Amino acid sequence: MATIKDIADRLGISVSTVSKGLNGASDISESLRQTVLDTAVELGYTTKQMRGKARKKLCIFVENMEYETPEQFGYDIILGFRQFAFREDYEVTVTPITPVFQATEKYDTYMLKNGYVGAFHLGLALQDDWMTHFQSTAIPTVLLDNNIKKNPAVSYIGTDSFEGIDDAIEHLTSLGHRRIGLINGSRHSFICDQRRQAYIDSMTAHNLPFSEETMPYGYFVPEAAKPHVGNLLSMGITAILCGNDLIASGVIDECSALGYRVPEDVSVIGFDDIPMSDKLTPPLTTIRQDRIELGKCGFYALNSQINNVSISRTLLRPRLIVRGSTGSVKT
Amino acid sequence: MATIKDIADRLGISVSTVSKGLNGASDISESLRQTVLDTAVELGYTTKQMRGKARKKLCIFVENMEYETPEQFGYDIILGFRQFAFREDYEVTVTPITPVFQATEKYDTYMLKNGYVGAFHLGLALQDDWMTHFQSTAIPTVLLDNNIKKNPAVSYIGTDSFEGIDDAIEHLTSLGHRRIGLINGSRHSFICDQRRQAYIDSMTAHNLPFSEETMPYGYFVPEAAKPHVGNLLSMGITAILCGNDLIASGVIDECSALGYRVPEDVSVIGFDDIPMSDKLTPPLTTIRQDRIELGKCGFYALNSQINNVSISRTLLRPRLIVRGSTGSVKT
Repeated sequence: MATIKDIADRLGISVSTVSKGLNGASDISESLRQTVLDTAVELGYTTKQMRGKARKKLCIFVENMEYETPEQFGYDIILGFRQFAFREDYEVTVTPITPVFQATEKYDTYMLKNGYVGAFHLGLALQDDWMTHFQSTAIPTVLLDNNIKKNPAVSYIGTDSFEGIDDAIEHLTSLGHRRIGLINGSRHSFICDQRRQAYIDSMTAHNLPFSEETMPYGYFVPEAAKPHVGNLLSMGITAILCGNDLIASGVIDECSALGYRVPEDVSVIGFDDIPMSDKLTPPLTTIRQDRIELGKCGFYALNSQINNVSISRTLLRPRLIVRGSTGSVKT
Repeated sequence: MATIKDIADRLGISVSTVSKGLNGASDISESLRQTVLDTAVELGYTTKQMRGKARKKLCIFVENMEYETPEQFGYDIILGFRQFAFREDYEVTVTPITPVFQATEKYDTYMLKNGYVGAFHLGLALQDDWMTHFQSTAIPTVLLDNNIKKNPAVSYIGTDSFEGIDDAIEHLTSLGHRRIGLINGSRHSFICDQRRQAYIDSMTAHNLPFSEETMPYGYFVPEAAKPHVGNLLSMGITAILCGNDLIASGVIDECSALGYRVPEDVSVIGFDDIPMSDKLTPPLTTIRQDRIELGKCGFYALNSQINNVSISRTLLRPRLIVRGSTGSVKT
């Protein structure tokens, strides 16, 4: 377990300053105090007092998403959520779930019997049983990348896919590309439907050609690229948007296997900007989601629900990070 | 100016408890402390210390909106914003603006020369000069009911019109209405465009007839009803949705002047739920916007922008408040 000294070492400040931050002393700045608290959460620091105290309990449920290490997509989302929850003195449990679990445990029942006052759900699929339960639950609930209409107890948070995809397509058209494909994540996913629609809207607005064949579904893994890359390239596609960075890394590999160079022959754009993106060869141009902030907004929305304020949705702005995987179209 | 005793009287607690709340003493509950702070803001209480201190400055700009008294639409929005800003130690100025003012003062220049670190804008119209300035400003900016695409410094907050209008139309269809009109607010307004589209979407989804003539534009005042009510009724319309509660009050008056009874002959639904809504005859069925919370979310989004987190949009859930102005369709 982390100690005060670990926090001090991480921040390069003295143990007594960390102690002041944790105890709310007034002679350090508010921003330093918040940094101390955030770092305490990041390192898993807890005080005896915290452990003994009966705190309100929240749960983060995770499905179809990796989150255990800082390289993985879900890690920062959970960290941002915990950092804000810590300031408001909530206790947070992370629980991985499966479709089978959802089929055997009703959502409301599970929440009540575990004493959770609210939950944040990451990665649920449209056909999951709990998605039906969310339509009528009265328990404060926040969903990442899923939207439940008309239930005031449920809130949706995410990143604006429409702006992200449009930024990417504008970037590609400025490089001369006109034949652009999209290898999407999985069917049965709200966010993949959104990105598909965003692609259709932006291609239409830019007067560019597309069809069912230029926007295949896949999965959020590198292997999803293989079945589609050859087909897209044979159609004359010169740039490939991807549902996430993992798919994009698979696209780069598959291009190489087929004898195409990135970006000289094919431009590739990912989505998310997970830590491996700038370590790929070439470094990946991608649409960044600020995952720490997604977690913080998730907590803000959930805490609002708990205080009887129904936020319908919160969308963060994406940011296009231009690196080496996109270049001018081959003439 | 308000005193500690005023706050104590308003809340029915002792002066010493108020004092503890204002000074952050640890032996009162956090929720009571927040209530004390919120009430201090509501009553305009300030300490000598606060007045002497150099605090970060925010501005709320208001156009086309009344906000001076609790009965008016903007009052609670500004109050909610100030309550949250107070907790974070910002100083807030409210500045009414006009199109002429915007034509003579550039937004960024005005902000810089007055030392404002961010602003919240209420009631601006689509053709206002500052709407153009917002496209490129780098100053943290939050707009109520206006959306600027792709500028990460600007955030949009509002209430989900699509859910609100759909709830209203579902309520009316459950009462047997099929011929439903919309007297909208003004042209050149983002939110009126949204509500018009929401009406079109919901009427289409419910398979109900509509045309350009069933959804006239007006203004956000009672007098806007007069030119349209007779025409709508002559077309066989049995229920009228309104762009806000003021228009709805005008519709009720005009129905009466034309010899129609509300709700026996015509059902009427407002938007906002301002304080006069339940004092009308009959009390008004309306789509509630929680304006205190809009103000708080406005501050949250602005404070996030100031801390380099770009929230694209935050939408609150509306709530249909059913009162006496809607009834079963006449058979």
